[in-house]
Amino acid sequence: MRIARFSIDGNVGFGVVEGDAATEGGPVLDIIKGHPFAEFERSGQKVPLDKVRLLPPVLPSKVVAVGRNYAEHAAELGNEVPGEPLLFLKPSTAVTGPGDPVAYPSFSSEVHHEAELAVVIGRMCREVPRERVKDVILGYTCANDITARDVQRREKQWTRAKGFDTSCPLGPWIETELDPSDLGIMCTVNGQQRQLGRTSDMQRSVEDLIVHITEAMTLLPGDVVLTGTPAGVGPLNVGDEVAVTIEGIGTLTNKVIKRG
Amino acid sequence: MRIARFSIDGNVGFGVVEGDAATEGGPVLDIIKGHPFAEFERSGQKVPLDKVRLLPPVLPSKVVAVGRNYAEHAAELGNEVPGEPLLFLKPSTAVTGPGDPVAYPSFSSEVHHEAELAVVIGRMCREVPRERVKDVILGYTCANDITARDVQRREKQWTRAKGFDTSCPLGPWIETELDPSDLGIMCTVNGQQRQLGRTSDMQRSVEDLIVHITEAMTLLPGDVVLTGTPAGVGPLNVGDEVAVTIEGIGTLTNKVIKRG
Repeated sequence: MRIARFSIDGNVGFGVVEGDAATEGGPVLDIIKGHPFAEFERSGQKVPLDKVRLLPPVLPSKVVAVGRNYAEHAAELGNEVPGEPLLFLKPSTAVTGPGDPVAYPSFSSEVHHEAELAVVIGRMCREVPRERVKDVILGYTCANDITARDVQRREKQWTRAKGFDTSCPLGPWIETELDPSDLGIMCTVNGQQRQLGRTSDMQRSVEDLIVHITEAMTLLPGDVVLTGTPAGVGPLNVGDEVAVTIEGIGTLTNKVIKRG
Repeated sequence: MRIARFSIDGNVGFGVVEGDAATEGGPVLDIIKGHPFAEFERSGQKVPLDKVRLLPPVLPSKVVAVGRNYAEHAAELGNEVPGEPLLFLKPSTAVTGPGDPVAYPSFSSEVHHEAELAVVIGRMCREVPRERVKDVILGYTCANDITARDVQRREKQWTRAKGFDTSCPLGPWIETELDPSDLGIMCTVNGQQRQLGRTSDMQRSVEDLIVHITEAMTLLPGDVVLTGTPAGVGPLNVGDEVAVTIEGIGTLTNKVIKRG
């Protein structure tokens, strides 16, 4: 099932995506009564997908991300895969939605794309045992861990390099039925392929990451775990259109603009 | 004015603290109608301070903190004051209140106290010019930037070392009328003095930090900026009572317990 968050005529809600581009009349959203973090009913009230504005599919209280989780990507920046997962935080204010602009920050001149599989947490949890990880996951979406690479090199902690406003596009929706262990993941810039990998090349699996993170901190419904990026990261410029596509989920597209 | 957040009989609210320990009958809370992030009225309904449970004075969406902001503290851990402020994030799930327990994390055997002046943001802001910083500050409170020092040494990013549950005690209340530029700041453990400094020894002032942070990210009402810790950091053990006192604000006390 695909769950999208959207706005239409000033109202915000969640809906289940039915159909796709090949469906007669195009895909529609079946509006959900309430929210998707508990059992919910579909209202039966349907709106065409192309009539709504898709929003970030969740509003996380925090985004917990992992660096250097694909060996080839670690190597391309001259790093090794660390002994323990290299966790960092992106604040809620960094989150932006599908189709929303990414604003090039004023303090960087080298902003990179990083296509990533994002895990959406479905229930409050801490110290999750490996065999219960699947119970705390609502689903998966696409993420772009936008990074000011020059700032990342300069500053020991990655707070500004990876935490600036609009540095965390998420979307287009949450896919709830998906095995994350071997999915194709791709990033294009202006239609040209830049990154291409498979989630099977992750050094730490989704289970590993959630066990490790929740040993330290509680995850809340809607919190997001980013799982690292495959090789091929590279620069974005103002005017570029960057797209992250993950097999079984869909495509998250954003345009880079000058910060206004 | 001192604004506290509290619960009584299952209800949560904000109140203005009137009087102190020397006042006849003891200090009371004058309950606020609404919240303190906009103009508010006092209800005139008063409850004795010793009848309520004080809560963290705010529920921040994020806590932005700075490392190595006092030269003597940087030196005691063998570090230099960095060229740019060394920012890191503590997640909202790390926040805990005055009198609440700090739970010793399972993955560390060297947990340290760090007494800090905390700035509470009063309004949504980004790219704040230096001369407008005072307009975005609601007030100040005490913080303890509890740190798993062994994990901090081992892991390049400080996410687990400084982001675990209960690693960010805040309180006891927000003091709205205070010049933060030269305040005494002290930490005691079981009544013995461990840290003693003055905020005038900060390498970057409150203004510097808010200008620098908001160049990158939006701050929201209730967000908290931690301003670094003076020299004297040291270990906490299960059973210890740790207290942070800041001149003009008050004392934040927490007991260290075994994580249950």
